[in-house]
Amino acid sequence: MIPLHLFCTLRNIAKGWRHRVICSAINFKARDCQYVRCCSTASGLGPFKTMEEILKRTVAPLPTYEMRDKSPPPPESSSVEFMHFYKGLEKEEKMDFLDKLSQDFGVDHKGVSELAGKVAETQLRDLATVLQVEDRLRYSLTPRYRQLLSHISRVEGGVKFLVDLRADVIEIISSKASESPHIRDLNGTLKGLLSEWFSVGLLRLERITWQSPCEILQKISQYEAVHPVRNWTDIKRRVGPYRRCYAFTHASMPGEPLVVLHVALTEDISNNIQAIVREFATLDSEEDVNKINSAVFYSISSTQAGLQGVELGNYLIKRVVRKLQGEFPHLSQFSSLSPIPGFCAWLQGLLGPQRKEGRGAGLLTEQEWREVEEATGARDTAADALRRLLAGGEWVRSERLARALEPALMRLCAWYLYGEKRRGYALNPVANFHLQNGATMWRLNWQADTSPRGVAGSCGVMVNYRYFLQETSANSAAYLQTKAVAASDQILGLVSQFQKNSKL
Amino acid sequence: MIPLHLFCTLRNIAKGWRHRVICSAINFKARDCQYVRCCSTASGLGPFKTMEEILKRTVAPLPTYEMRDKSPPPPESSSVEFMHFYKGLEKEEKMDFLDKLSQDFGVDHKGVSELAGKVAETQLRDLATVLQVEDRLRYSLTPRYRQLLSHISRVEGGVKFLVDLRADVIEIISSKASESPHIRDLNGTLKGLLSEWFSVGLLRLERITWQSPCEILQKISQYEAVHPVRNWTDIKRRVGPYRRCYAFTHASMPGEPLVVLHVALTEDISNNIQAIVREFATLDSEEDVNKINSAVFYSISSTQAGLQGVELGNYLIKRVVRKLQGEFPHLSQFSSLSPIPGFCAWLQGLLGPQRKEGRGAGLLTEQEWREVEEATGARDTAADALRRLLAGGEWVRSERLARALEPALMRLCAWYLYGEKRRGYALNPVANFHLQNGATMWRLNWQADTSPRGVAGSCGVMVNYRYFLQETSANSAAYLQTKAVAASDQILGLVSQFQKNSKL
Amino acid sequence: MIPLHLFCTLRNIAKGWRHRVICSAINFKARDCQYVRCCSTASGLGPFKTMEEILKRTVAPLPTYEMRDKSPPPPESSSVEFMHFYKGLEKEEKMDFLDKLSQDFGVDHKGVSELAGKVAETQLRDLATVLQVEDRLRYSLTPRYRQLLSHISRVEGGVKFLVDLRADVIEIISSKASESPHIRDLNGTLKGLLSEWFSVGLLRLERITWQSPCEILQKISQYEAVHPVRNWTDIKRRVGPYRRCYAFTHASMPGEPLVVLHVALTEDISNNIQAIVREFATLDSEEDVNKINSAVFYSISSTQAGLQGVELGNYLIKRVVRKLQGEFPHLSQFSSLSPIPGFCAWLQGLLGPQRKEGRGAGLLTEQEWREVEEATGARDTAADALRRLLAGGEWVRSERLARALEPALMRLCAWYLYGEKRRGYALNPVANFHLQNGATMWRLNWQADTSPRGVAGSCGVMVNYRYFLQETSANSAAYLQTKAVAASDQILGLVSQFQKNSKL
Amino acid sequence: MIPLHLFCTLRNIAKGWRHRVICSAINFKARDCQYVRCCSTASGLGPFKTMEEILKRTVAPLPTYEMRDKSPPPPESSSVEFMHFYKGLEKEEKMDFLDKLSQDFGVDHKGVSELAGKVAETQLRDLATVLQVEDRLRYSLTPRYRQLLSHISRVEGGVKFLVDLRADVIEIISSKASESPHIRDLNGTLKGLLSEWFSVGLLRLERITWQSPCEILQKISQYEAVHPVRNWTDIKRRVGPYRRCYAFTHASMPGEPLVVLHVALTEDISNNIQAIVREFATLDSEEDVNKINSAVFYSISSTQAGLQGVELGNYLIKRVVRKLQGEFPHLSQFSSLSPIPGFCAWLQGLLGPQRKEGRGAGLLTEQEWREVEEATGARDTAADALRRLLAGGEWVRSERLARALEPALMRLCAWYLYGEKRRGYALNPVANFHLQNGATMWRLNWQADTSPRGVAGSCGVMVNYRYFLQETSANSAAYLQTKAVAASDQILGLVSQFQKNSKL
Repeated sequence: MIPLHLFCTLRNIAKGWRHRVICSAINFKARDCQYVRCCSTASGLGPFKTMEEILKRTVAPLPTYEMRDKSPPPPESSSVEFMHFYKGLEKEEKMDFLDKLSQDFGVDHKGVSELAGKVAETQLRDLATVLQVEDRLRYSLTPRYRQLLSHISRVEGGVKFLVDLRADVIEIISSKASESPHIRDLNGTLKGLLSEWFSVGLLRLERITWQSPCEILQKISQYEAVHPVRNWTDIKRRVGPYRRCYAFTHASMPGEPLVVLHVALTEDISNNIQAIVREFATLDSEEDVNKINSAVFYSISSTQAGLQGVELGNYLIKRVVRKLQGEFPHLSQFSSLSPIPGFCAWLQGLLGPQRKEGRGAGLLTEQEWREVEEATGARDTAADALRRLLAGGEWVRSERLARALEPALMRLCAWYLYGEKRRGYALNPVANFHLQNGATMWRLNWQADTSPRGVAGSCGVMVNYRYFLQETSANSAAYLQTKAVAASDQILGLVSQFQKNSKL
Repeated sequence: MIPLHLFCTLRNIAKGWRHRVICSAINFKARDCQYVRCCSTASGLGPFKTMEEILKRTVAPLPTYEMRDKSPPPPESSSVEFMHFYKGLEKEEKMDFLDKLSQDFGVDHKGVSELAGKVAETQLRDLATVLQVEDRLRYSLTPRYRQLLSHISRVEGGVKFLVDLRADVIEIISSKASESPHIRDLNGTLKGLLSEWFSVGLLRLERITWQSPCEILQKISQYEAVHPVRNWTDIKRRVGPYRRCYAFTHASMPGEPLVVLHVALTEDISNNIQAIVREFATLDSEEDVNKINSAVFYSISSTQAGLQGVELGNYLIKRVVRKLQGEFPHLSQFSSLSPIPGFCAWLQGLLGPQRKEGRGAGLLTEQEWREVEEATGARDTAADALRRLLAGGEWVRSERLARALEPALMRLCAWYLYGEKRRGYALNPVANFHLQNGATMWRLNWQADTSPRGVAGSCGVMVNYRYFLQETSANSAAYLQTKAVAASDQILGLVSQFQKNSKL
Repeated sequence: MIPLHLFCTLRNIAKGWRHRVICSAINFKARDCQYVRCCSTASGLGPFKTMEEILKRTVAPLPTYEMRDKSPPPPESSSVEFMHFYKGLEKEEKMDFLDKLSQDFGVDHKGVSELAGKVAETQLRDLATVLQVEDRLRYSLTPRYRQLLSHISRVEGGVKFLVDLRADVIEIISSKASESPHIRDLNGTLKGLLSEWFSVGLLRLERITWQSPCEILQKISQYEAVHPVRNWTDIKRRVGPYRRCYAFTHASMPGEPLVVLHVALTEDISNNIQAIVREFATLDSEEDVNKINSAVFYSISSTQAGLQGVELGNYLIKRVVRKLQGEFPHLSQFSSLSPIPGFCAWLQGLLGPQRKEGRGAGLLTEQEWREVEEATGARDTAADALRRLLAGGEWVRSERLARALEPALMRLCAWYLYGEKRRGYALNPVANFHLQNGATMWRLNWQADTSPRGVAGSCGVMVNYRYFLQETSANSAAYLQTKAVAASDQILGLVSQFQKNSKL
Repeated sequence: MIPLHLFCTLRNIAKGWRHRVICSAINFKARDCQYVRCCSTASGLGPFKTMEEILKRTVAPLPTYEMRDKSPPPPESSSVEFMHFYKGLEKEEKMDFLDKLSQDFGVDHKGVSELAGKVAETQLRDLATVLQVEDRLRYSLTPRYRQLLSHISRVEGGVKFLVDLRADVIEIISSKASESPHIRDLNGTLKGLLSEWFSVGLLRLERITWQSPCEILQKISQYEAVHPVRNWTDIKRRVGPYRRCYAFTHASMPGEPLVVLHVALTEDISNNIQAIVREFATLDSEEDVNKINSAVFYSISSTQAGLQGVELGNYLIKRVVRKLQGEFPHLSQFSSLSPIPGFCAWLQGLLGPQRKEGRGAGLLTEQEWREVEEATGARDTAADALRRLLAGGEWVRSERLARALEPALMRLCAWYLYGEKRRGYALNPVANFHLQNGATMWRLNWQADTSPRGVAGSCGVMVNYRYFLQETSANSAAYLQTKAVAASDQILGLVSQFQKNSKL
């Protein structure tokens, strides 16, 4: 499978790069050898190639509208060359490369403008002409690189390459590393393609068990971001009795779970995560269906940064609900048990600079501030004391402190989830995910995650987003279109308590 | 899986339809029951629905550009309703329905025109604005029904439904049943979507053997259009020793071969099809690798009319070549053994009305005409005699006649394949297919298919399109772009003989 | 897999065989080549070998009792040589070979006798000695060839070879072709070994569907002996909705169903076979579980003659019952619908020579005889008329004749099944099989199989052997140990009617 | 799957057991419930049962010779009852139970003796009679419990139960816990049955990879006794590139590897184990077939104590050799790299009590003793010093000591392996295993296993038993029959050096 090949690159001088020859050893399949030999000798510069050369050679021009169905696919070696070249680049080089690709091999703006002019004029003429000019316009809006991306998807490992490429693109955009507006076009094109290839109809729902290949289970363990897997007994339990683990996989990326959902099958909707991920008793027992009334989604992880915005998690939850209903017809309650990442940080923010202006004071009632002072023997202000308490996390082991803080933290947390927004939608990303899916913000749970991570991130509070199956569809539409949040009386009660006190 | 449901439709009166209640029994999955009950009562008209109602309800409006990522997917029941309604329609109703869908739920031309005007104006301004307006324009060119089609693909059986829907659309277009230009837009949209979903990266190459499921083998038998399968011994032989049968399948259409390639593994490139499909000797023998030097593609069939224009056959041949090279490293010759459908009809056409003007006379040399006359004892003109001969087909069993006709028919056939064009490309569809793939028109074979079908269709002649692997890429580009046909000396010799004689 | 090899044998002159060189082409695996070369040259006679030589070389002597765990397994080539040699023999040669094997390579009678003497004497001594001598005796009763058979089972294809070998042995015994008493010992040894290897714990229950490999379905069709499969639509229906087809397979004989059970899932216990095997309506319908109350076993076939006496059918029925109960918890009735092979022949026997002595006269009542005479316009005796009627089979299409014959034939058939015995057990082999399994002889069905085969074999009558699951265990023991037949009132009533009339 | 059931037992008073009710919770499948209810009420004593009762009920009497084929199998519930009862017993109870089973339900000695008498007498009569009486005698030598064991094998989990039962029997015998000679008969019967069920023809060779189910890999890790697996990276490497891991599995014990072989694919026959099990470099590399010339079996483990004496390891090695030859046709060297358990202990034994008589002195040459003294600065005798050195194990890290000890330890080790015997066969069990398989004692490797375990067990020495494929068959026979050990010149040279010095 694997002769080695030295792949060499003369860096682009115009971009101010230092002369340097990068030699990267790349695994080549035997069948590629021929190509390598070809392109080495065909190139005027011998084996050295600049980015421009590579791009020119591999990104074929867009055929004319008339010839669009008459163009043979480029040789597979173009795709392979592009992929190998890109993989061999270092991080900043990749940015340059993507900049160049998106800018110089995108849409022909002049052509678009001309056709657009025509379309704007033709609206009065007959419909057939309108439709035809529209179609030409549509075609002219295709970036030149789109074809290449499409061809890459056909090469072995190509789809995975494009997913990773988009992850790079997203990083460039979010880190604002590039000022080029073209990179967003590239992102849009990639997202469009990936959305079709990762359409739910093409995904496979797999149940992961202790019988699944070790390779998959190792990945599931590594990807678990919500409640880290500590060892193999831990992962064995998460795929054992009273637990379900499902993943979407894709024919083009075998053995690679794309999004993973962990479910606990319980008598009641869980209010505590340790009971789920630490409880050893279940390991060898047999499931008693009579004890299974609720399905608690306690972890959902996307594994591919490059599939951002390609909706998978939502569909996975729906498929799993249906699967579980098939297996347990009497199963009646579906809910998440979710962390509240960012709650503590948000709270600390309020306690910080604001305290002087007394604004933070409104966070707790007078009575509550007093209790904090007493419990901590605070010599400085209560807000400082509280801030230190929360930063430390030991308060959770003091029954007195915990009792004292409970009403305030629950109230504040409810507000954080329900009231804090970003462009009108829930600020908290987990809340936003489940609300988009049509879930109801159902129950805040005190001391639900007393792990250091849980205490530091969300003061030990967790929340259930409950899926009332009859309502998710309407909830989802309402949230997305009118930004309305479905919430239970408990949540709304806490929010209203908060509003009474707060000066926020 | 299948409670029954009565699904009722009030036909559209405005379109002049007779009042009639169509009750079609449709299989419903248990989980759909709820939906059916809902929509029956929700609708003001009770269970009766017009096409317009169905379309309005199921084809959601296109979200605004700003809201395009904020729209929840429509409920799955919309897709299911659309599918069930459509399946229950009769043929003409389907046409009306597709007309309406493509016309009333397509692109918003006014919106496009406005945006196009903006694009035409913005070309002078900054690039970021240009890109953004272009993106809006691109989005506005999306037909409203595209979303629905995309959602249908996610429902169980949805992809197959869309493939079949496109087959209907293609039939409407090719039969010119509809005058609407919109139907072509619908076709284009469907083709675009199907091309992504049936991208080669998502297809699975399956070798079909006698161990494959009966269901698949039965389908392979039914789909075999080139050399019909007569019985199960026949199909057993075609998947047995010295034979290979490969198919592309797709995750969304399990158990359904999309395109099927039959290969014979031979010592030399076959010049006769009966030796391949009738030879019983191979059935129980073991393959002797030393006798395998050539792979002869003797049949390739596409099974899904709705995937017309989605390139599969080309890729299948390439994948199979690679697979066979892996299995037989010394395999050196790849070639088709192809029928020449249309040759006889074309020849008869030349012999018919033209004969009076003596034009047909140029088809044969004086000497040849004489031989025909002698051999047939023709009382009327030789052209009439020849026409009757060819129509009858018995000539093939007369050694004398066969010998007399060989030079002329070979010459004419070479010309038919090489010289007759349609829009510049080979008129013969099989030739066009292999030339697009980059094959070389290599060898005409006399009396290569003496079955009635072979004699009636192509005067018993068959042709090898040979795949010289080093050249296919260049050949394909040359053919598609400059219409140049790669042909062997044998072919070119015959063509030149023809040109000397012919007055065509 | 298999270059060819010429395998030559000098026939045994002493046995009066003609000098002849038998060259039989045998499939050899590539890896065997070396061995063949070895044994060809090692042998003093070159490639020619007599039976004796082969046997001497391949059937190793039984190690002494002390060395029994210290003997290395013979080289695999011994087993392969034995197998190839045997397969190359013609039928009579096989008989000679098996005679020789069983006689000359069996038990060492002298050794046994000596040890037996010791055992007979040692009964007074200490237990440990007794046990040890018994163990020696047990060991000495092992035929020398047993080891070889055991080793053959380890070679690829070895188990199947032994199954077929036993089929040959059984044929020799049942055809009384050999007078040697040793062949029975060989049979017993083979049966013992096969019983362990085909122990139910090692069998795999497979459901056969239209998705199963073509190879299996073709075999299932070929093996179906009870109601022959006519074509592929026929077999498709027998594995389609409302039908089940199960088989036992074995790891050592992959793709080879050992015993096959066909089941119809019906509302009531079927009384007619055509309704099951000819009804086309079911082919594409979906099963409605509410219509499934009964499981009717309408065909059970053993496929391996060599597994005679190794109980498989009984266990298959039990496993299938359990499987079906799992799938259809409310399934309440289990029954066969069985043919009555031999009934007509038995009846004809009674009508033949006996009629003169008037003995056959008792078969029908006076009234019945009269009706036969009238209906047939018989010129000779009524018994002759009846005999001709039954031989012809057309009576079944005459309503009058059928009505006239029904009471008599039902009565006689009940007696044939219930009263006719062989060594105390039911003479009819199907009856014997189901009674051994613990079924109840439940219902005779008039005109249940009106196919020519059914009319000719059992006058169109079929019988249900019903499995009352609570009783099968007790029934089975009672039948096997006391020969008691469990029968329904219908059967017993018919039998008692018969007894009133008959002089049998 | 899992209602619970209380299973109660009244202990046997006669055996002096205390009255006690053992209640053990046993998992019952739903389908067993009925049986449990039955047997609870059917029993006169209610749910309490003594061992005798259980045995009487579950171990059916042996049918008479005439009825041997006429006995229905006992109800499955007998087997289930026996299994559950046995599993619920505590260790000593199990011994009592097995004693009772083997003693009271074994062979009918009186019957045997009578038949044996007949056999001894009949030798003069005709052959048919002889054979028949022999067959009766053979049948009479069947222990009554054999039938039960056979039936247990058909119940789900039955085969695994019998494997574990035999492990108990073996433990009783080897610990001499029982004085009963009958237990050996039970062992023999079990071994005979298991040998047939675990015949190599029924085993499946599985390659274990990182794609194998986690359950299997976890078991492989646990079972690895030779070079313990430390973590999951460790096991991943042992199934990764340049490594092979094969196991035999059995249809009746799915997911349970019976015997596991680890192979390293190397350029030369390895002389060091750390290079194999610790080398991380290989983990992600691709195998280069050109670097693979040798297959080194570096670990073979049997996992089922109850399959002792059922030859599996030998066959596994042969099958793997064939498999590897198929994959790497040029692979030319096959060898083990084996530990030498017991070598250190044996050596310490020689250095201990014997030293006074100066006998141990002969172990080293004068020169060597001196070097030990110098190196250790020994104040007491050199033998004591050496003993302490070896016990400590630190010597291995002193270059000087290691150099000083090498000649002596190599010489002694060669003798230990080659010369020390038990009943004529190699004392060292690993040596005995490979010599039985026909391997050659090929090379001693100094400092081949420097792990604490390796140094403590075999002074860091390891040995290659090499498989010369042309010779294994002859070697095996020679070893087993004449106890001749095939050894290389290196080994023989060391042995002869030893003999020159030693006074052993």
